[in-house]
Amino acid sequence: MAKPPTDPNLAPEPPEWPLQREASAKSYTYENERGWRRYRMLRPCRGMYHDVRRRLPYYWSDIVDAFTYRTIASTIRMYFVNLLPAVAYTLDMYRRTGEFFGITEALFSSALAAMVFSILGVQPLTIVGITGLISLFNYTIYDIISLYDVSLYPSFMAWTGIWAAVFHWAIAVFNLCDYMRYVTDFSSESFGMYVGIIYMIKGVEELVYEFEQHGATAGYLSCIIAILYFASIYSLEKLGQSTVWKPWFRGILADYAYVFATLFWVGFSHIPGRLKDADISKVPVTEAFRPTQPRGWLLDFWTLPVKWVFVALPFGLLLMLLFYYDHNVSSITAQARQFPLKKPGGFHWDFFLLGCTTFVAGILGLPMPNGLVPQAPVHTDSLTQYETELKIISTAEGAGTEIRRPVVKATAVVEQRVSHFLMGLALIGTMTGPLLTVLHTMPSALFAGVFFVVGWGSIESNSIVHRLVFLMSEHRFIQRDEPLLRVRPRAIGLFIGLQAAGVAATVAISQTIAAVGFPVLIILLIPLRTHVMPRWFLLSELEVLDDFTCTNRQVLASLGGAPALPEHSKEEDWGLERRRSEQRFGLHRQRAGSLKR
Amino acid sequence: MAKPPTDPNLAPEPPEWPLQREASAKSYTYENERGWRRYRMLRPCRGMYHDVRRRLPYYWSDIVDAFTYRTIASTIRMYFVNLLPAVAYTLDMYRRTGEFFGITEALFSSALAAMVFSILGVQPLTIVGITGLISLFNYTIYDIISLYDVSLYPSFMAWTGIWAAVFHWAIAVFNLCDYMRYVTDFSSESFGMYVGIIYMIKGVEELVYEFEQHGATAGYLSCIIAILYFASIYSLEKLGQSTVWKPWFRGILADYAYVFATLFWVGFSHIPGRLKDADISKVPVTEAFRPTQPRGWLLDFWTLPVKWVFVALPFGLLLMLLFYYDHNVSSITAQARQFPLKKPGGFHWDFFLLGCTTFVAGILGLPMPNGLVPQAPVHTDSLTQYETELKIISTAEGAGTEIRRPVVKATAVVEQRVSHFLMGLALIGTMTGPLLTVLHTMPSALFAGVFFVVGWGSIESNSIVHRLVFLMSEHRFIQRDEPLLRVRPRAIGLFIGLQAAGVAATVAISQTIAAVGFPVLIILLIPLRTHVMPRWFLLSELEVLDDFTCTNRQVLASLGGAPALPEHSKEEDWGLERRRSEQRFGLHRQRAGSLKR
Repeated sequence: MAKPPTDPNLAPEPPEWPLQREASAKSYTYENERGWRRYRMLRPCRGMYHDVRRRLPYYWSDIVDAFTYRTIASTIRMYFVNLLPAVAYTLDMYRRTGEFFGITEALFSSALAAMVFSILGVQPLTIVGITGLISLFNYTIYDIISLYDVSLYPSFMAWTGIWAAVFHWAIAVFNLCDYMRYVTDFSSESFGMYVGIIYMIKGVEELVYEFEQHGATAGYLSCIIAILYFASIYSLEKLGQSTVWKPWFRGILADYAYVFATLFWVGFSHIPGRLKDADISKVPVTEAFRPTQPRGWLLDFWTLPVKWVFVALPFGLLLMLLFYYDHNVSSITAQARQFPLKKPGGFHWDFFLLGCTTFVAGILGLPMPNGLVPQAPVHTDSLTQYETELKIISTAEGAGTEIRRPVVKATAVVEQRVSHFLMGLALIGTMTGPLLTVLHTMPSALFAGVFFVVGWGSIESNSIVHRLVFLMSEHRFIQRDEPLLRVRPRAIGLFIGLQAAGVAATVAISQTIAAVGFPVLIILLIPLRTHVMPRWFLLSELEVLDDFTCTNRQVLASLGGAPALPEHSKEEDWGLERRRSEQRFGLHRQRAGSLKR
Repeated sequence: MAKPPTDPNLAPEPPEWPLQREASAKSYTYENERGWRRYRMLRPCRGMYHDVRRRLPYYWSDIVDAFTYRTIASTIRMYFVNLLPAVAYTLDMYRRTGEFFGITEALFSSALAAMVFSILGVQPLTIVGITGLISLFNYTIYDIISLYDVSLYPSFMAWTGIWAAVFHWAIAVFNLCDYMRYVTDFSSESFGMYVGIIYMIKGVEELVYEFEQHGATAGYLSCIIAILYFASIYSLEKLGQSTVWKPWFRGILADYAYVFATLFWVGFSHIPGRLKDADISKVPVTEAFRPTQPRGWLLDFWTLPVKWVFVALPFGLLLMLLFYYDHNVSSITAQARQFPLKKPGGFHWDFFLLGCTTFVAGILGLPMPNGLVPQAPVHTDSLTQYETELKIISTAEGAGTEIRRPVVKATAVVEQRVSHFLMGLALIGTMTGPLLTVLHTMPSALFAGVFFVVGWGSIESNSIVHRLVFLMSEHRFIQRDEPLLRVRPRAIGLFIGLQAAGVAATVAISQTIAAVGFPVLIILLIPLRTHVMPRWFLLSELEVLDDFTCTNRQVLASLGGAPALPEHSKEEDWGLERRRSEQRFGLHRQRAGSLKR
C-alpha cells in the first residue's frame, strides 16, 4: 500500500526514518518482560515517554513538509468541517444549558484545542474540537442540576472538568490507553451508528425549535434550506467520486463541497423579498472575546460547596470514559490502515494533553474539546494524495468487452502540523468582531443541514447497514468471492442484531436524564465482544464479520503491540471484507460524515 | 427478443397468428406498385382499411387474454399515472383560462378518450388523455383571445377543435401518418427533453402560485411536500430496479410507487396541527357531472362570428400538427421494439379516432385528449412480464472473481384492451360526487411533485444528457466497446448541440404568446435531420448517434414499410447503442416519466 511518494512536492522520506520506526516499534513492548515488569500499570509514564521519544525526531519535518498545495486545501476544508458542526452542536447546547455555553465558548475551546494539539500533540493529524456528544453531556448535567439549584451549574461543570482531567492524567500515566488495541469494529461501528442517529435527531430538533420560536413560515423555509443544503453537499461529494471531468476538478469539488454549499445557501437565505421576510433565525453571537454570560473567563469554582465537589466526581469519570473511547477511536480512524502514513503516532501523550485541555476548558467554562469522531479521518483524507487508476478486467467475451473500473489508490500523505495550526489561527480569527458578524448572517437551518450531512454520512457508510442490505439482497446476484457468503446468514443477523441492540439502548438512554451514562454502554460492548461473543460464533465467521479497529502497525507501536484475542488467529486472517473491497474497487474517499471506508 | 410466453397465465399464441402477421405486413405496402398507385395520397382510406383488417381478428383475444393479475396491476397503476398528471396540467390550465377548463372537463375528456380508444382503437395499448402541451396550447389561445374579446373563447375553442378534427380526418384518409416512419431519435429525444423542461417549469409555477395565493407559510410547506413527494417516488422506483428483496416485492414497489407516495403525502398534508393550519390549497372541484362554468355541456359554437371561425382555422392546423407528432410518437413508444408485442397496431385508424375525440371535446368545451408522451409506454411496461436473469461474466482473474450482473428481459406482454377500458371506468367513477370529494382532499403541492417526477424522468433518461456526460467523462474509464467512441467527439457535440438549440428555441417560444407555434418547430427538426444533417456527419456516425424511433416490424406494417433515408444503409446498422446496452445490461424498466429506455 505504502508506495513511495510520487509527487515532486512531497519531500522524500529521509533514509533514517525506517530505522527509527523499526527501533521505536520494539522499544515500547511488554513481550519479553518478566515479573512485575509485565504489568503495564506498574510502569508509569512509560507509554508517554516512548510516544514523545518516537515522534520528536520528526518535529522539524512536520513543519517543512507542509509547503505544498494540499496543506492549503486541507486548512480550508478542515476549517469548515470543524467549525460548521461545532456551531451546530453549540446552537443546541446554547438553548439547553440556559445560554451558558455560546458560540464564543465553542470557538475559544476549538481554537485552544487546535493550538495545543497542533504544537504539542504527538499525532497532529487528529483534529480535536466540539462534538455533539459533549453537547449532550453538558445539557444533561444542566437538566440534573436544575432539579436542585441551577446557579451551581458553572462551578459544577468546572469541577466535572477538573475531576475528568485528573482521570485523564491517571489513564495516561498508567498506560491504560493500551487497552484501545482491543477495540474492534463491533463496537466502533456501533458507536458510528449511534453518533449518526443522534445527529439526525439533533437536526430534526433544530428545525422543530425554529417552528416553536419563529413560527410556521420560518420553520418551513428552514426545512427547505436544511434539505437542499444536505442535497447540495451530498451531490457535490458524489460528483467528486465519479469519473466525470478531470481528476483535478473532481478534487476541487470534493475538497470544497462544504465551502460552495455554505456560501450558496447563506446567500440564498438573504435574497430580499419572501426569503428575507420569512425571518428565519440566525446564529446568535455576543461581543468578541467575551463570555456569552456576563462573567469573567475564570469560573469561581472554589466557591462550590464541598458536597457538590464530590457529586461532580462520578460525572468527571463518565466524561473521561466518553473521551477515552471517543478521542482514541477518532485518533485511530485518523491513522487507519488505508492511509500510507510514515510517521508514528502516540496515544498516551495525546490523552495526557487532552486532560490538560479538559482542565482548562473546565475552569474557564468552555465545552470540553475532544477528538471528532466523524471528522478526524477527513483531515488525513484532505492531506492524502489520491490517484485514480484504471483497472481493466478482461472477460471471456472477447476483445473490446473488457470491463474498465476506476480504482482509487492513496499514494502518500502530507504528514505535518501546519494545517492543524493554521486552522486554529482561523478559528481565533473567527472570534474577532468582523468575522463574528459574518457568522451571525448564517441561518440556523443550515446547521440542521450540517447535522443531516454528518449524521447520514455516518449511517450510510456503516457496516450494519451494508450487512442488512446484504441479507436482504437476492442471493444469485451476489459476487461469489464476497466473504460474507462464508458466514451463516443467521450469524450475520445475530452480529448486527447485537450491534443494533447496543445502538438502540444507547440512543434510548440519550433521550433521558440518564444520558450521561451512555459512554458506559458503549464501552461495555468491548468485553461483550471479547469475552462473550466468541462462544456464539465460529472463529472463521468473526474473522469475516469483525476486525480490529486499530490495524496500522505504526499505531500499534504506541499501544504496546498487537492485541491477542482469546480466539488466537493470525492477523492476516482478519478484515477480509475490507481487503477484498480495496483490492477490487480501491479506497473510498473519506466523506465528511463517514466513520470509515 | 420475442420468446414464447413462459407464464402459464398467458394464453399461448394461436397458430394462425404468425401467418396473419406475415400476410398483413405485405398487404399494406407500396413497394411493387406502379404509376399513380405509387402515390400514397392518391389511395384514400387504404391505411385505415388495412389497420382495421389487420387488427380485427385479434379482438376476441384482446378480451380473453386479460384474465391475469397483470391487468389488475396495470389498471391501478395507469389510473394514477394518467389521473395525477392530468389533474396537474388542469390546475395550471384552470387558472390560466379564466377557470373555463376545470377538473370535471379533464376527467370527462380522459374518460371519453379511454372509452373510445379501448373499445374502438386499433392499438389499445396507447393511453390517450390530457397532456401538459394541450394545457399550454389552450391557455395561449386564451391569452390571444383576451386581447380582443374573452367571451368568444368557448366557441373559438370549439371551432379550433372542429377544424383540427377535419385536418385529423384528412391526414388519416390520405395515409399521411406514413411519414412518421421518418421520425428519428434526433427529434423524438429533443421532444422528450422539451416536454421534461416544460414540466419542470410548470412544477415551479405551481409552487409560485401557492405563494401568491396562500402566502409564505403555505408556499414553503408546498415546496416541502413537492420535494419529498418527488423523492419518495424516485426512491421507490430506484428500489424497484435494485436487487434487494424478492422480484415479486420489487415488482409491487415499481407498480404502485405512485399509489403509496400519493396516499402517504395526502395523509401527511392533513395531519392536524401545524401542517393542517398552513392551509395549503387543495384541488378545486365543482358539482359532479356539471361543467365548471355555469353552462350546458354543448357549446353554442354556431354563434361565433364567421370572421372568427376562419381565424380558428390556423389554430386547428397547429393543434393537428401537435397531435400528429405527439400522438403518433406516443403510440410508437408504446410499441417500442423492447416490448415483445405479437399483435399489430395501426396509426391511420387511431388518428381518425383522435379526430373524432377532438371534435367531441371541441364542441363540449373539454380539453382535447391525445397520446400521453411520457406515460404511454408505461402502460405497455405495466403489462409486460419481466424476468431478471443472472448474467455471469467470467474474468481472467480466476475462480470466484466472475462478475454477476442482473439482466432484465421482457418475456411477454399481456396485450388486451380491458385494462384501458377499466381505467376509463375508474375515471368516470372519479367524476361522481364522493370521489370528487376525495380528489378535493389532495393538496395542489402534490401535483407540483407530479410535474417534477414526470419532468425529471424525461430529462434524466434523455440521450442528450447521457451524451453530454459521455463527452465530459474521463476517456480512460469508458468501456472500449462503447459505440460512441467510434464517433468524433466534435460530431457528438454538434449533434446534441443541434438538439439543444431546437429544445431551447421551443422552450423559449413556449413562454411567449407565440407558444401555439411550438409544434411547427418540433416538426421542422424532421426535415433538418433527413435533408441537412447528412451533409455534416459521416453515415457511420449517424448510425451510432441516431436511430429510427419506429423500429418494430409490427408497427412498420401499418406505416407502409420501413423508411429509406438518403443515406441508404441497412437497418441492422442502426441503433448500435441501444442494442449494446440491452445485450449487456438488459432492459430498463419504463419509469413513469421517461420517454424511452
